[in-house]
Amino acid sequence: MAATIRDIRDRTGLSLATISKYLNGGNVLPRNRKLIEEAIEELHYEVNELARGLVTNRTKTIGVLVYDIQCIFVGNMLHYLGQALHQNGYGMLICDSCNDAEIESKNLQFLLNRKVDGILVFAVSLNGTFLKSARKADVPVVLLDRAFRNEEFDCIEIDNRTAMLRATNKLIRRGHNRIALVASNIEYTGMERMKGFEDALSDAGILIPDAYRVYGRHSFELGYQGMKGLLELPEPPTAVILSNYDTTLGGIMAVNESQFTCPRDVSIIGFDDLLMSKVIRPRLWIVAQPMEEMSKRAVELLLKRISHEEEGGPLRISFSAGIREGDSIRNL
Amino acid sequence: MAATIRDIRDRTGLSLATISKYLNGGNVLPRNRKLIEEAIEELHYEVNELARGLVTNRTKTIGVLVYDIQCIFVGNMLHYLGQALHQNGYGMLICDSCNDAEIESKNLQFLLNRKVDGILVFAVSLNGTFLKSARKADVPVVLLDRAFRNEEFDCIEIDNRTAMLRATNKLIRRGHNRIALVASNIEYTGMERMKGFEDALSDAGILIPDAYRVYGRHSFELGYQGMKGLLELPEPPTAVILSNYDTTLGGIMAVNESQFTCPRDVSIIGFDDLLMSKVIRPRLWIVAQPMEEMSKRAVELLLKRISHEEEGGPLRISFSAGIREGDSIRNL
Repeated sequence: MAATIRDIRDRTGLSLATISKYLNGGNVLPRNRKLIEEAIEELHYEVNELARGLVTNRTKTIGVLVYDIQCIFVGNMLHYLGQALHQNGYGMLICDSCNDAEIESKNLQFLLNRKVDGILVFAVSLNGTFLKSARKADVPVVLLDRAFRNEEFDCIEIDNRTAMLRATNKLIRRGHNRIALVASNIEYTGMERMKGFEDALSDAGILIPDAYRVYGRHSFELGYQGMKGLLELPEPPTAVILSNYDTTLGGIMAVNESQFTCPRDVSIIGFDDLLMSKVIRPRLWIVAQPMEEMSKRAVELLLKRISHEEEGGPLRISFSAGIREGDSIRNL
Repeated sequence: MAATIRDIRDRTGLSLATISKYLNGGNVLPRNRKLIEEAIEELHYEVNELARGLVTNRTKTIGVLVYDIQCIFVGNMLHYLGQALHQNGYGMLICDSCNDAEIESKNLQFLLNRKVDGILVFAVSLNGTFLKSARKADVPVVLLDRAFRNEEFDCIEIDNRTAMLRATNKLIRRGHNRIALVASNIEYTGMERMKGFEDALSDAGILIPDAYRVYGRHSFELGYQGMKGLLELPEPPTAVILSNYDTTLGGIMAVNESQFTCPRDVSIIGFDDLLMSKVIRPRLWIVAQPMEEMSKRAVELLLKRISHEEEGGPLRISFSAGIREGDSIRNL
């Protein structure tokens, strides 16, 4: 016969009130928590989270909207997010938006129908209009990686503009003034990085031809085609910054296929310190986001919104990115 | 005021029975489905999947246990699985086992507590003991990528032994007889690949030193350390097979750091046709699993188990892998 809450009472000696509080996600003393969890395991007591969800109005499930689950950056963030959520007893319901704003919008509805307690968003959309149904349903939202311009949502990001300014300065200080940028110009994050690039050039009084600004949609193809075009210019740049992970990969591929060698013929700075940068030779200079810290902070903030410990207006938390040195910059 | 099912009736002219059937996940005519979905959207009717789940005993949620969400192979499979599930109105509750059997076992309980309708498993554990609680709860399970030896679960995989036999033969036919293998020897998939390697060598009457068999746990490190060790041997192999994606990456990194050049000094065959193999030069010979087809088939089978359309004993569905030609093998 299936174990009941009374069996847990008999086993632990605790009151039904305490056990019920635990089962409904309330705070109980660590010692009591341990006793209850042991009893649950020994008695094979089965928690019906679904029924519990209807009673507590909590599903202990967080929805995660990701722009592309095949993106390696996203996979790494999900790892850290999952760890932080699990430590707090939450599961992740992950929806892949496949880089499509319409799918993203449907996925949001899907998550709201499933009564998730909160939502983490790696957005495809360029503004937060699609999130208004979450707001209406009082489901807290925290944006990760991609903020919206002029919109009021909790957001965890890096200071993209400063990170790019510092990266560009690394090249300038090593004698480069023919510097190109391959960047995404269709979401906030990419545009901030573009601004940081322009800041550095203008601080140093450097003018570059327009052909050195290669802008498009965040992708492997952008990096690949962008780098190819740059290397075929009558006067190619001596250094190229690839402003996100996928673009970095594509750019490296184009260099490998060309007659150019890095750093002899072209210096490179890439983005995001993931596995790829360990495999590629020469070791790349990399703008590295603190992914684990960002993930932890996002979960912390979202859970505080859910529990109403954090009640104020939207917070934007900016981390600063590190720059990891490599062998991909030549001194001119 | 919130819209009710009666408002949908008034809007669509359909019967309450039809609308209710739709809402409970039943089959309705495509034309009616469209009418209902339009009405739901126009009226902002909110489906409470949670309450629906208690009534229908279906949560329309599939649990996915993955051994490591940072693994790029896993990320790609999740993309295809998510697409196939979404097309059928299912969500994915993804749990990351972080390569730890104990975490995997806890994650399973987590999914069962949440009353998922079925579970897809990329297993850490080497046998299916931990899955018995799913069986007890009558929740169908389909294994992906990693089967268990001698155990009875639905499973979607590639014919690993034949794939490796064919890959090894590619090297033998190009004159190689000093061939090494870096492989995982602790799960079924890795062991099948080892057998295919031995089959090919024995068919061709080739004897290799034991040092050419580098076995350990599926990882980047295994490939890196393994390749390093091989290249430092007094008589290094002329060709190395890296038998999974992470190991391939690690092996390539070790070659890049060494004085060896591929394919001049060492020929290489890797596994899994993912982004990385597009970036690495020379273009790698790759054993490529049909990831999209495997994912679709896994979802199809799991949903049939859930609906009891498929009632027989466990099925093992083996796809054959393709071998993609590259420039990483030298003719001797």
